[in-house]
Parts: sequence; structure tokens; C-alpha cells
Amino acid sequence: MRQSKLFTKTRKEAPADEVSRNAELLIRGGFIHKEMAGAYSYLPLGLRVLKKIENIIREEMNAIGGQEVFMTSLQNPEIWKKSNRWDNGVVDNWFKSKLASGGEVGIANTHEEPITNMLAHFANSYKDFPVYIYQFQNKFRNELRAKSGIMRVKEFMMKDLYSFSRNEEEFKKFYEKCATAYLKIFKRVGIGHKTYRTLAAGGSFTSGFTDEFQTISSAGEDTIYIDEEKSLAINKEIYNDENLKKHGFEKSKLKEEKAIEVGNIFPLGTKYSEALELSFQDENGQKQKIIMGSYGIGLGRLMGTVVEVLSDDKGVIWPESIAPFAVHLLALGDDEKVSKEAEKIYDSLEKAGIEVLFDDRLDVSAGEKFSDADLLGIPFRAVVSVRSLKDGGIEIKKRTEEKGKIVALEELLKLCSTNFTN
Amino acid sequence: MRQSKLFTKTRKEAPADEVSRNAELLIRGGFIHKEMAGAYSYLPLGLRVLKKIENIIREEMNAIGGQEVFMTSLQNPEIWKKSNRWDNGVVDNWFKSKLASGGEVGIANTHEEPITNMLAHFANSYKDFPVYIYQFQNKFRNELRAKSGIMRVKEFMMKDLYSFSRNEEEFKKFYEKCATAYLKIFKRVGIGHKTYRTLAAGGSFTSGFTDEFQTISSAGEDTIYIDEEKSLAINKEIYNDENLKKHGFEKSKLKEEKAIEVGNIFPLGTKYSEALELSFQDENGQKQKIIMGSYGIGLGRLMGTVVEVLSDDKGVIWPESIAPFAVHLLALGDDEKVSKEAEKIYDSLEKAGIEVLFDDRLDVSAGEKFSDADLLGIPFRAVVSVRSLKDGGIEIKKRTEEKGKIVALEELLKLCSTNFTN
Repeated sequence: MRQSKLFTKTRKEAPADEVSRNAELLIRGGFIHKEMAGAYSYLPLGLRVLKKIENIIREEMNAIGGQEVFMTSLQNPEIWKKSNRWDNGVVDNWFKSKLASGGEVGIANTHEEPITNMLAHFANSYKDFPVYIYQFQNKFRNELRAKSGIMRVKEFMMKDLYSFSRNEEEFKKFYEKCATAYLKIFKRVGIGHKTYRTLAAGGSFTSGFTDEFQTISSAGEDTIYIDEEKSLAINKEIYNDENLKKHGFEKSKLKEEKAIEVGNIFPLGTKYSEALELSFQDENGQKQKIIMGSYGIGLGRLMGTVVEVLSDDKGVIWPESIAPFAVHLLALGDDEKVSKEAEKIYDSLEKAGIEVLFDDRLDVSAGEKFSDADLLGIPFRAVVSVRSLKDGGIEIKKRTEEKGKIVALEELLKLCSTNFTN
Repeated sequence: MRQSKLFTKTRKEAPADEVSRNAELLIRGGFIHKEMAGAYSYLPLGLRVLKKIENIIREEMNAIGGQEVFMTSLQNPEIWKKSNRWDNGVVDNWFKSKLASGGEVGIANTHEEPITNMLAHFANSYKDFPVYIYQFQNKFRNELRAKSGIMRVKEFMMKDLYSFSRNEEEFKKFYEKCATAYLKIFKRVGIGHKTYRTLAAGGSFTSGFTDEFQTISSAGEDTIYIDEEKSLAINKEIYNDENLKKHGFEKSKLKEEKAIEVGNIFPLGTKYSEALELSFQDENGQKQKIIMGSYGIGLGRLMGTVVEVLSDDKGVIWPESIAPFAVHLLALGDDEKVSKEAEKIYDSLEKAGIEVLFDDRLDVSAGEKFSDADLLGIPFRAVVSVRSLKDGGIEIKKRTEEKGKIVALEELLKLCSTNFTN
């Protein structure tokens, strides 16, 4: 894509109303736009990142047998009354609205009830289970205060998967499979080295423990204690001698860190299956309970975490797997030969199927182009200038490196195609 | 995908609360699930169709310079007050809710205001225009009555593109370009032969005329008059001698038809750019007005129209371009050799990158499998049975054909790979 055509522009100044690093850098780079407190739109560069995260998650959910659906945001109060979650005294962050046709409607803050209710239309025999259903869909939460940029908002894209199993053993097997898939996802989006499966309190959904996935970051709201050897952690909420012992942690080996919760998985037991009357007949014709689990990842939260963890004073440093483009091609100056050469390189990269953002802007100084490249954080920067051509080609530099090197077009193409499969 | 693992099932009976053909067939096939009046969830088979429609539209919008974004559903009343569209007396189908933090919030029924407001943060010079921005995002409309299955609902996925031009000429050029792209889209999803660009009244957005894209169907709510030679039509709303003459229609050549509106494009003039203070400085430093246009396609409406137009008594007949799978592979009976052969064929198709739904269910009769295949409407049905193996391979039949023919695996693979590029 040509940067001269991109409608967004970068900004030098941090927005006055943002304190978090992720919102500051993402707004300055034109990745997102703030609509109101706790609601951000995704602009072309940001949406490209979000879609890549979505695809990575989709691949891993499909790999463990997930079936993708797309549920409505509008929610029928009747089914939420069955689980006693329609009441504002029970769930305090509903957005509700009046229906023109009479009565109320909810805007989904989660989807346990509708997914369970829907599945009950299709599945009732032992032969129909286990089932794993997921979606990418906005959640709406009427929070009193939004904070942490795109990490704690009132509207956010979430991958939520629900598991429906016939017994505890079947449930636990999938639960562990999904935990493994989550670690793969966090690795693939570039924060695997800082992310730990973390034992946490059950919350309102379950009386037992749950697992969070926590990424070390000073921007985190949580405190966790990490056992590096085991690659496991325990949340401060449940950090006490009894729990440490119970779950095999040794106090002396634990390291305290601030962390961001990038995902969670938890047992739901039979709460929703019983309330929504989802059950099955076993081989002997006996009615049995369905055991559920819930597995969530907020896509914006994950994107914000990547920015918190992988950025420097100059801007974002996108991992190759989720970068909006693979290569940022900069043409410097208004020399005709440079323009011509840069156009040729742009064409070659595009033809090779390499995602390239081409800074072909004519009225922008070299200094500005360099600082934009750092702010946008595309993994490879390829500069074409009078000097680079004199030196024999294109100056290529990784966002993470200080110094670049001169390569010929063929070498650039080879480098990109080994690094990026588009 | 293995049909034995698919959590949805087909139904023989039409749902009692649906009168439209599209909802009846889509619910019977397990493509969609009704959450409440006017709100349908997309299940695995239906979501696959919806995503293919989305990708076709995306390709065509990118091809004419569209830049994709993803705006929020939550809407800040302040920006809608600027255009006087917050008032329920002006826009009567808002879903509004109270914010926990105080005040009200809207759930987007359209996105002219937020997109225009957002763009004003980035663009203000003649160098920044024209700009074309689009998204795929749910719209929420608090309609008194939902009807026509998935075609007139309270929540629906829409592609909405907005054009921002510097003058009428620039606007009209893009408007025509988009009209051409729309015709391509309708052709690609399989209803091109029944779809006409149709002159219609301006509605509340504009005082002039607008263009609708109407697909001939007895389920349509509109009446149009078609000039076959010109491949153009005029909506009954504005069908009078004056308009016919003005737009070059000859009464004698026109044919009356019922039709479904599958898309519309219309001039917005300067209404929203003025209200939201989006303007530009021209080459002489003079402030100038931005001329806008709006271009919408409802994805569910389009999917429903395909079902209305392309179906028979037995079920849906998906065009190859948007079918949930390319091939429906049926293994009949419980003969071991048949199972083994069918598994081999399934593997081969999957390896060749061909999307295949494999009816590997053991407890289902041949008759049921055949009627499910007709209902689901996958373009090719490939049957493996004792008889087909004796006859030399797989019995392949198009959904549109009465009789099949026996082919060897190699031939099936060849046939699929020439028909489907995955």
C-alpha cells in the first residue's frame, strides 16, 4: 500500500487524554481512533494487526476442534433470566435498551447463555458430544471507568470458546488442550517469552480455581509469582501458604512481577447447562449433565499488551507474525532515479506477495519518514536514496537493529520471502 | 470437515414461526439460529457462506481504493447531535442505553457521523482527498416489526463504504466506479443474471435520486420496471412519465417485476461533512466543502436473496463462489470397504486444498444423507457406495443436475481443482 494514499497520519504529540503507553503509541501511529472513553475504532493499520491476531487464534482453535459461529449482540432477556443473570443486581455491567416492539433487550456482555441455549436445539445424545464452539464477536460492558487504553474498554472484540463435555475427565482433557493452544497463540503473537499460565481465583463463575495467562509488564494490573523452572505462576489473589503447598509451588523459587491478563480459561461446571436445559442421554437412556468450560482472549487487550511489551521510546516494534506490513519501503528525496527505483522495488515486492507499506510521499523529509517508520514499527525498513543507490542498492534495517546494510533487490526479495509467508 | 463432528443437524420440518423461504431453508439446514424476532446467529455452515460473501465484497472494495476500518458500535451522542440525528423524532430506530458513567450511549444504526468525525482528525488539505473508507460491522435497528427472515432484521452485518470527494465530478466518477464494482459483486455471488441497477427515490439522505441494486424475486418487497436491453430498472416509487422521460426509459420496453434490494449507493452531498466540520483547503488556501457518498450492502440480506433466488423444493443451491463447502462427500452403508475408500477420498480432497464436507455418519440412512445433501446445497455431491465402487469409483453429481456419473478419484480431484480455487 502507498502511504500517500493511506488516510491516517502519524502524530508527534501524545494525546492529552491518554496515560497508557499502548493507547498513546497506537493513536500517534494512527492505528486506532478514540470514539469515547472506553471505545476505540480500528483504522487500516490497526485493523490489519487485529485481523492477523484473529487468524492466529482461529487456526489454533480450529486445530483443537473448535467450530466457529457468530452469535448476535442483541440478547433475549428470557434466556438470561433462566440463569439469573438478567438482573442488574447480579450482573452490574449490562447495556440494556428498550425494544420498539415492547420489552427490553440486552447487548451481549458475554455469550454463555445464548450459546448453551442454541446448542440445546441440536444436541441431546451422548453421540452429539463433546462439542467446542467459538466465535469472534464484540462484547459490551457498561464499566464505570475505562482505563489502560485499549486494554480495559466498554466494547471489545473477543474470542470466546465454550466446551461442552460429558464428564469431568473429558472436560479436563480439553481444558489442558486449550491451555496448550493458548500458550502457542501467545508465542505466535510474540509475547510467549513473557507469558505464564497462572493459577487464579475462581471468580463468580466457579467455586474452584481457574487459569489465567499473564504477560509480564509494568503496565499490568495484576501481581503474579512466577516459577521460572516450571513455567507457571500463581496470582497474588490466592498467594498463601496453603495454596502454594497444594499446587506444588516453592516460595523461595518464586519471583514477583506485575502482569497483564491476556487470556483465561475456566470451568463453568453445570451452571449454564442446567439453567438452559442442555443435557444428554447416555448409552443407557439415562439423562446426564453437561459440563462446560469457557476460554476467552480479548483481541484488543492482546494487541495492547504486545505494544506495552514490545515497544521503545520511538514507537511500536511489531512481531513479524502480526505486523500490519512486512516491509516499510522508504523513498528519500525527490531525485528522479530514486523514485523510479523505489517504484520498481515496490512493484517487485507486491508481485512477490510481500506486504509492503511504501512511503512514496513527496512532501515529507527524510527525518520525518524515519521517525514514522520507527513509530509504526514494521519489522523491516528498506530505504532507497541517492546514497543507497550509490552504495549498490537498498539499505535494509530491522526495527530492532541500530544499523542497516545495503542489499540488492534480489537479496531483499529473498530475505522477505524466507521471513514472511503471505 | 466431518459431518459426524458438526454440531448442527438438519430438520425436516419448517420452523413454525417463519414464513419466508430463506429463513425456513437456512434454519432447516442449520445455517442460522433464531435468537429472537429479527436477530439470527450464524452457525458454522452459515458463517462459512457469510465469510465468503464478505471476502468477495472486500476484494471488490479494495480494488476501487477502499481502505478498511472497524468502527465501534457504541456511539457518542455528541457527534450525532451535530447532524441532528440523535433525536428519536428524527431517527426512530435507535437502540439507546444508559452509561454507568453517566449520560446516554447509542448503539450504531449507521456510521456516517463517526466516520466523518474520525476523518476530520486526519484530513484537511486537498492533498488528503479523495478518500474511500469502508467496514464490515453490525448495524442495529430498533424496528417495530422484523420480517422476511434474515432480510429485514434488527441486527445485521453490513458493508458500508463512504466516499469523501473534493467536487461533484470526483464524486460522480467514484460513484460510477462503485456501481460497477457492485454489479461485479452480485455477479460473483451468483445473482448477477437477476440483478439490476435501479433508479430510486432519494429517501431521507438526499433530495436527488439514488441507485438501488434490485434482484428479481417473488419474495421482494419492491416493484421495479426493467429495461432488459439497457440492463437498468426504475423503482415503482418514482415511476411516472416525467421521470421515465428524464432518465431515458421507454414505457413500452419496461417489464414489471417484484425485487429485493440487495444494495444501494447514494449521494450524501455535504450534509455530514458540514455538520461534522470536515472540509479541506484547496491549492489557494481557500476552505472548500467535502462531498460525500454512501454505499451499502447487507451481507445477511444478500445471503437470504441468494437462497430465495437459488433454491428448489429440496433445499438451497449454493453458487460455487459462496458455498460452505465445494464438495459433499457421502459414504453410504456400513460396508468396510466403502468406509475405507471414502476416508481415502476425504484425505485426498483435503490434501488437495478442496473444501469438503464428509458425511461419515454411521447411523444415518442413504435416503437421509441424500435429502440432507439436497437441503445443504453444496455444489458437488460425491457418493461412495458398494454400487459406485463396483461401477468403478465415485458417483459425482452437481446439485443442479438430476443424474450423476461415475468418476475415478483422479478425475474427481481434477474436476474440483478446475472448479474451485481455494
